[in-house]
Amino acid sequence: MQGLLLGWESCCTSSKVLRFVDINLRGIGQVMFQDNPLSGLLFFIAIGWGSYASGMPRVATGGMAAVVVATLTAQWLNVDAADLGAGLFGYNAYLAGLALPTFLAPSPLLWIYIALGAIVSVPATLGIANMCKTWGVAALTAPFVLVTWLLLLATYAFTAIDGSGLPRTDAIVPIDPMAANPLAFRDFIHGMLMSIGQVFLKASVLAALLLIVGLAVNSIAAATFALAGAIVGVITAHVLGAESNLITGGLMGFSPVLTAIAIGAVFNKPGARVAIYALVATIFTVVVQGAMNVVLTPFGIPTLTGPFVLATWLFLLPHQRFDPAPET
Amino acid sequence: MQGLLLGWESCCTSSKVLRFVDINLRGIGQVMFQDNPLSGLLFFIAIGWGSYASGMPRVATGGMAAVVVATLTAQWLNVDAADLGAGLFGYNAYLAGLALPTFLAPSPLLWIYIALGAIVSVPATLGIANMCKTWGVAALTAPFVLVTWLLLLATYAFTAIDGSGLPRTDAIVPIDPMAANPLAFRDFIHGMLMSIGQVFLKASVLAALLLIVGLAVNSIAAATFALAGAIVGVITAHVLGAESNLITGGLMGFSPVLTAIAIGAVFNKPGARVAIYALVATIFTVVVQGAMNVVLTPFGIPTLTGPFVLATWLFLLPHQRFDPAPET
Amino acid sequence: MQGLLLGWESCCTSSKVLRFVDINLRGIGQVMFQDNPLSGLLFFIAIGWGSYASGMPRVATGGMAAVVVATLTAQWLNVDAADLGAGLFGYNAYLAGLALPTFLAPSPLLWIYIALGAIVSVPATLGIANMCKTWGVAALTAPFVLVTWLLLLATYAFTAIDGSGLPRTDAIVPIDPMAANPLAFRDFIHGMLMSIGQVFLKASVLAALLLIVGLAVNSIAAATFALAGAIVGVITAHVLGAESNLITGGLMGFSPVLTAIAIGAVFNKPGARVAIYALVATIFTVVVQGAMNVVLTPFGIPTLTGPFVLATWLFLLPHQRFDPAPET
Repeated sequence: MQGLLLGWESCCTSSKVLRFVDINLRGIGQVMFQDNPLSGLLFFIAIGWGSYASGMPRVATGGMAAVVVATLTAQWLNVDAADLGAGLFGYNAYLAGLALPTFLAPSPLLWIYIALGAIVSVPATLGIANMCKTWGVAALTAPFVLVTWLLLLATYAFTAIDGSGLPRTDAIVPIDPMAANPLAFRDFIHGMLMSIGQVFLKASVLAALLLIVGLAVNSIAAATFALAGAIVGVITAHVLGAESNLITGGLMGFSPVLTAIAIGAVFNKPGARVAIYALVATIFTVVVQGAMNVVLTPFGIPTLTGPFVLATWLFLLPHQRFDPAPET
Repeated sequence: MQGLLLGWESCCTSSKVLRFVDINLRGIGQVMFQDNPLSGLLFFIAIGWGSYASGMPRVATGGMAAVVVATLTAQWLNVDAADLGAGLFGYNAYLAGLALPTFLAPSPLLWIYIALGAIVSVPATLGIANMCKTWGVAALTAPFVLVTWLLLLATYAFTAIDGSGLPRTDAIVPIDPMAANPLAFRDFIHGMLMSIGQVFLKASVLAALLLIVGLAVNSIAAATFALAGAIVGVITAHVLGAESNLITGGLMGFSPVLTAIAIGAVFNKPGARVAIYALVATIFTVVVQGAMNVVLTPFGIPTLTGPFVLATWLFLLPHQRFDPAPET
Repeated sequence: MQGLLLGWESCCTSSKVLRFVDINLRGIGQVMFQDNPLSGLLFFIAIGWGSYASGMPRVATGGMAAVVVATLTAQWLNVDAADLGAGLFGYNAYLAGLALPTFLAPSPLLWIYIALGAIVSVPATLGIANMCKTWGVAALTAPFVLVTWLLLLATYAFTAIDGSGLPRTDAIVPIDPMAANPLAFRDFIHGMLMSIGQVFLKASVLAALLLIVGLAVNSIAAATFALAGAIVGVITAHVLGAESNLITGGLMGFSPVLTAIAIGAVFNKPGARVAIYALVATIFTVVVQGAMNVVLTPFGIPTLTGPFVLATWLFLLPHQRFDPAPET
């Protein structure tokens, strides 16, 4: 594997086109913090399959188009070369490019909307990263969440963009107790895998398995914490009595998965104390997911990875307490 | 009094158990900015009485449990010893421990929920304090407000935690003019005392009097500004035409009380110019309380001390204009 | 023109009264970033005419009263003399003084409410400027937006202040497609001029023309970007299918106008790359305007210049990419 990557890297050094491909693949890999083109490729295949299988190939196309547009925008803005090369200007656009065609009806204008989101994701990433630098934390997927929320909300005010896939706006009412039926063991397994897939807005078993492989080729620790995060997320959500459909669909667990990777394996050196800290953060992310589901109900937009961003910032901001990871 | 405190301090130096008690009492005292175990003890007794008298002893128990859990968490995280010893990791948890059983129905899981809130309050305090340090302001009760809002909101998404004590979610409508009837003089006095009690979510005359004594044993200035804040809060709310029930219940005045203490006696050296500044801040806190009552109506959660935090930050952020208090 | 301004400046140097007038006029000029008393005077006349013509002279009076109160407050707080002299403590209060009588019914208490808003705008400006300094960006009109939102929201909780001019609170529903009819060419021109007038909450052709003159006397670039921003704003809103009434009334374009001036002519040296950057920012401001219209629907308050503030911060925060303007 290491030889393969070295070979690829030397090809990229001599070819501008391959380097461009490399940057975009790393951008996709950075959705789960992996600065590795092979991880990115596996994620890309996973999402491609998930989109195709669910009859929405435009989702994968949207993601690919967005990451390319964002990379070009970042080059035009002369961003820091190391950050660009590590894919840090790609992952927010990639997620926006997956989210917009997931929630909006296809139309020619949708593609302009996706391009706008991808372009704006670059100043958003630069700006939010500047703010976060003040406190020594990463921007995470906040640029994706902010830009995509604005683009989705605005569709309620515009007739030319149709938000037919958005959740219905509604008043907040307490959950119906019947919606939280006991889960069978197979539901647990399903919910766990979907929690990993939903990081990329995809509910597909095969996609989830490919994502885990994509993590493992670059970091066994990240793959481990992703699985652990999914298990903790699903169990916590079930104990608290979240809606069964949300749990089995992975919609209570994808933010906890990201929190677990971030706190447990990326921004701290893995260890026993860090694992306990990550466990608390992961459990609390389920609460934040529930809270954000509630807050956004009247606005008719999904949380995206907002709960992960908020909870992870909360647990990263006091960052002096654990050694930093040797490499991010 | 001073001798009593010196004697207690020397006992604490030689006993780990007493030191632990001391830290927790100071944590309770810090709800109203008092780094003094006697203030904390008087506040603790006040809240104990208020809980018992209102038939909800679990509120006082929740607060006590939360402050202990938070102190243990802070010790596990190796926080700064001086901050820990001053009770700065206790007051947010104490308030969360009072608020959760006030608004949620009793159940075994409630106690785990309280423990989770208390644990998370510690990284939240560390993180928010780090952010606030950039601008030279204190975290105030923002960690309590943020963590508790999330925990309360999430109950609408979970069947295992019952938010039966939460305000009903509702659409925003202008207040019914009949709701703001003229107040009799005794209503003013009652509203003023309740405004002090509601800082700890308790509407009890005896509790309010004990809280004033608890302030006075450590700082006459703080007690004076608390009373002045309560008077200004109640009068302003009445002049603007707030709902009479809210005024007499102390629910328009508790944030102004905290603002008055913070701006008038804690973060600035008391004086004529500071008093005028504190007066404007206190009046504006009533407006912020009204605004937050409105904003949170569709979400079915209480403002907690959010109006105090927002208004006080607004008046602390330009902090170069007044001399700092000699001791905080 | 330059001689006129030099003569005025020498008069101001020898007269405290004229200096006070100068500061207030510059405060009005700063609504569109112009540190020039003649710009301020032209803006003042434009708004005076617009208020008179629409039968609401109290709006112009409110603005004037507020800017005077804010200047006095800033002097009492001993703010930085250079900032004060440049009008930086006037524009937020001026806007608040226009907005409050626009949305609230006249009453004696309204004037106290306006005075409170004007007073609080000063610490708000100081505080928010302190925060923004951390990231090298300006406070823009954020102090106006924050303070006025709070004052407007609170009217739903108070009987003595009547928010009869506020938008009705409502649930969010997708826009009716019939509301976005094709616009005739004259509607475009009208919408463009109204977009400039609505920066000051005024929909008047004559006012808009005076505002453009007021910009041009100090900065041809600012006037050019204002016009370009209005054109881009109106076209973008129409292409996306925004409500025709909002477009022709200037309500989709006033924030884009401000974004275009800020990004294109004030905080960056005008040039081809900056113009492209400003174009993207202006287009995105229309999306943010749509999104904020949606988000605020349940709360029954207007966006004010919130969309401008959010979008412009987003595009200013990565500020290392363009040379700063030689003078602001």
